[in-house]
Amino acid sequence: MSLANATTLPLVGFTPVHFELNVAGKVATVTLNRPEKKNPLTFASYRELTDFFLAAQKEEDVKAIVVTGAGGNFSSGGDVFEIIGPLVAMETKELLKFTRMTGELVKAMRACPQPVIAAIDGICAGAGAIMAMASDLRLGTAESKIAFLFNRVGLAGCDMGACAMLPRIVGQGRAAEMLYTGRALKGEEAERWGFLNRLVTKEGLLGEAQALAAELADGPTFANAMTKRMLEMEWAMSVESAIEAEAVAQALCMQTEDFARAYRAFANKQKPVFEGN
Amino acid sequence: MSLANATTLPLVGFTPVHFELNVAGKVATVTLNRPEKKNPLTFASYRELTDFFLAAQKEEDVKAIVVTGAGGNFSSGGDVFEIIGPLVAMETKELLKFTRMTGELVKAMRACPQPVIAAIDGICAGAGAIMAMASDLRLGTAESKIAFLFNRVGLAGCDMGACAMLPRIVGQGRAAEMLYTGRALKGEEAERWGFLNRLVTKEGLLGEAQALAAELADGPTFANAMTKRMLEMEWAMSVESAIEAEAVAQALCMQTEDFARAYRAFANKQKPVFEGN
Amino acid sequence: MSLANATTLPLVGFTPVHFELNVAGKVATVTLNRPEKKNPLTFASYRELTDFFLAAQKEEDVKAIVVTGAGGNFSSGGDVFEIIGPLVAMETKELLKFTRMTGELVKAMRACPQPVIAAIDGICAGAGAIMAMASDLRLGTAESKIAFLFNRVGLAGCDMGACAMLPRIVGQGRAAEMLYTGRALKGEEAERWGFLNRLVTKEGLLGEAQALAAELADGPTFANAMTKRMLEMEWAMSVESAIEAEAVAQALCMQTEDFARAYRAFANKQKPVFEGN
Repeated sequence: MSLANATTLPLVGFTPVHFELNVAGKVATVTLNRPEKKNPLTFASYRELTDFFLAAQKEEDVKAIVVTGAGGNFSSGGDVFEIIGPLVAMETKELLKFTRMTGELVKAMRACPQPVIAAIDGICAGAGAIMAMASDLRLGTAESKIAFLFNRVGLAGCDMGACAMLPRIVGQGRAAEMLYTGRALKGEEAERWGFLNRLVTKEGLLGEAQALAAELADGPTFANAMTKRMLEMEWAMSVESAIEAEAVAQALCMQTEDFARAYRAFANKQKPVFEGN
Repeated sequence: MSLANATTLPLVGFTPVHFELNVAGKVATVTLNRPEKKNPLTFASYRELTDFFLAAQKEEDVKAIVVTGAGGNFSSGGDVFEIIGPLVAMETKELLKFTRMTGELVKAMRACPQPVIAAIDGICAGAGAIMAMASDLRLGTAESKIAFLFNRVGLAGCDMGACAMLPRIVGQGRAAEMLYTGRALKGEEAERWGFLNRLVTKEGLLGEAQALAAELADGPTFANAMTKRMLEMEWAMSVESAIEAEAVAQALCMQTEDFARAYRAFANKQKPVFEGN
Repeated sequence: MSLANATTLPLVGFTPVHFELNVAGKVATVTLNRPEKKNPLTFASYRELTDFFLAAQKEEDVKAIVVTGAGGNFSSGGDVFEIIGPLVAMETKELLKFTRMTGELVKAMRACPQPVIAAIDGICAGAGAIMAMASDLRLGTAESKIAFLFNRVGLAGCDMGACAMLPRIVGQGRAAEMLYTGRALKGEEAERWGFLNRLVTKEGLLGEAQALAAELADGPTFANAMTKRMLEMEWAMSVESAIEAEAVAQALCMQTEDFARAYRAFANKQKPVFEGN
């Protein structure tokens, strides 16, 4: 999958300036692209990334999203001089505005119907680790270093949903260790703990993430979006309620043409071609 | 443990026709038994399995249940021609009736007081994977292939509680991978991820599952049923509330004769003989 | 880190008689100390341990707590003759008073702002396993044997929050196995399952646990306490609510001097010195 020159969401027309956007087929790739500083986030890029994922909710032509970083690192998180410095000088009201804005990014990543796949190499720290955590799937390399290092800068591990989400991914004890110590989890351990879905080579990383995204994008995307929504909705729901919620959601999916397409293909011993409706 | 000719729940008198039922001692074994089609589920077997687990709630002589499949496979899930075909033609109301009926099976498996042990070999797919997931414990072989393949037939992963239950078993990231891709998890990986409790040989599978079931059935079954109930009840409860709920439940268990039996046996350096009351 | 003779919480003046307390720097070490009986809990020690963790809420000079056992074992749990015997003879009201008292210990461990690190060797059973589970982090040795053996004494696995907390640490299937069978989990398996954060040598155990505690105690302890609180608060919260709760909590932490200290140190290429305010 080559990096074409598309830099705009085809239907909704979103064009970023603080990160690189590539759209190839039904897959959009977001590249954090300030490699000389290990792709930090800034006030502007936080806002723009959030706007991108909000716009993606209406972007019918994109069915899966890859998030990655340029130059061998994912992201070093909030920039020390561009973010932490100003925060130290802010008053209460402005601080809450900032922390809410960062939370909005995670909410937007969870709310868009497209599965989000993080392709992680090198440094993946702070808000960068949060973006990885907030993705649906995570591929990484042995050189990945994932660190929720908020306590290293004097802050709490409860940032952008980490105390809720990280324990559900790696377990409560391991999440506590990462959040209390800020230590970096390397690729192999991250795969062993279930933070990374798969380890791939540095060279293969982006290609494998985009291939997986393309596979999902070729799937029944209406149904996949429902899977994503229910994974979120059932987070703190009783088993009984979850079963009822799924009965309703799946009955809806059974009325899509994709379900009929799969049946017809199966009956004809063909591979189904899904269209997301 | 030999397969006797019992095919009826001893007290409540339930006799299935769509699966094989064997009762030996305090252990009931359910065998999905259409090996030529890899033991698929049909409308009738869904309903009958649900009725069986509902009947088990009143069956005092059975204290643990093993679920397995005949002929080297667990279950291929909902049959393409017997289930998916008719569903494609159904109207809304009938579809919801169906998805609710399938959810009832999971609810019945979770509501019966007996621990349910899945003995898994070969194909364990779709609704078959759901039955494994809805069991309390899972033994499998290296040849197990566990696939939540709903998206392969154009449907969502949110089927019968999977978006709630699977993440709690294998973690949120790994569950998302299984539900978005429908890929088969092989035995070793399934054990590594905590989906399978233990890997055993093909030859030893049923025997080991029944031996484990017999061990639980010889335990304090009133208390074990309380463990099962509280694992369910505390699913989405705060830690504080869970601690209070357990204080009440355990105080109740401390008034059983089994608790006194254990103490007396211990004081006499004997092995306790529990009676489930 | 040597065991000094301090046996009293420095500010609040708590002095235990049923366990050993050592305070060195900002780290308090609790040692269950009846090695000839493998450090069982008794009515009195339950109560005193709870009082200790409640007192720790007000103890500003202690910033992390290690819990361990003397003589090569962590704890054998509730003593058979000192606890189980009397319980067998108790009436309903007294039983509930007891189970609530044991739950109070877990609540107190979760409510104190200090991270609690369990240092586990040898037997770690029953209420001992619960104390390990209720800790924030767990170090252990290959000789650790962790057993939630309530069903062995005729009781349910739902004791002191185990049906809520253990599944979040090791996953629902593995927790069910431990609670239904009471089997002992050895060190290596416990690390593999995420119950233990790390395996260390018998000789190194206490030292490594105290070193980790000292590291946390030298961190931003106001923020670490917030991490602990939010890990608890978000247990059964929706993702959306969790993100909002963290936005507020982190905005508060951004107003601490520790956050400014970290920024200044970073700008000066120094290591920050945190003071917990």
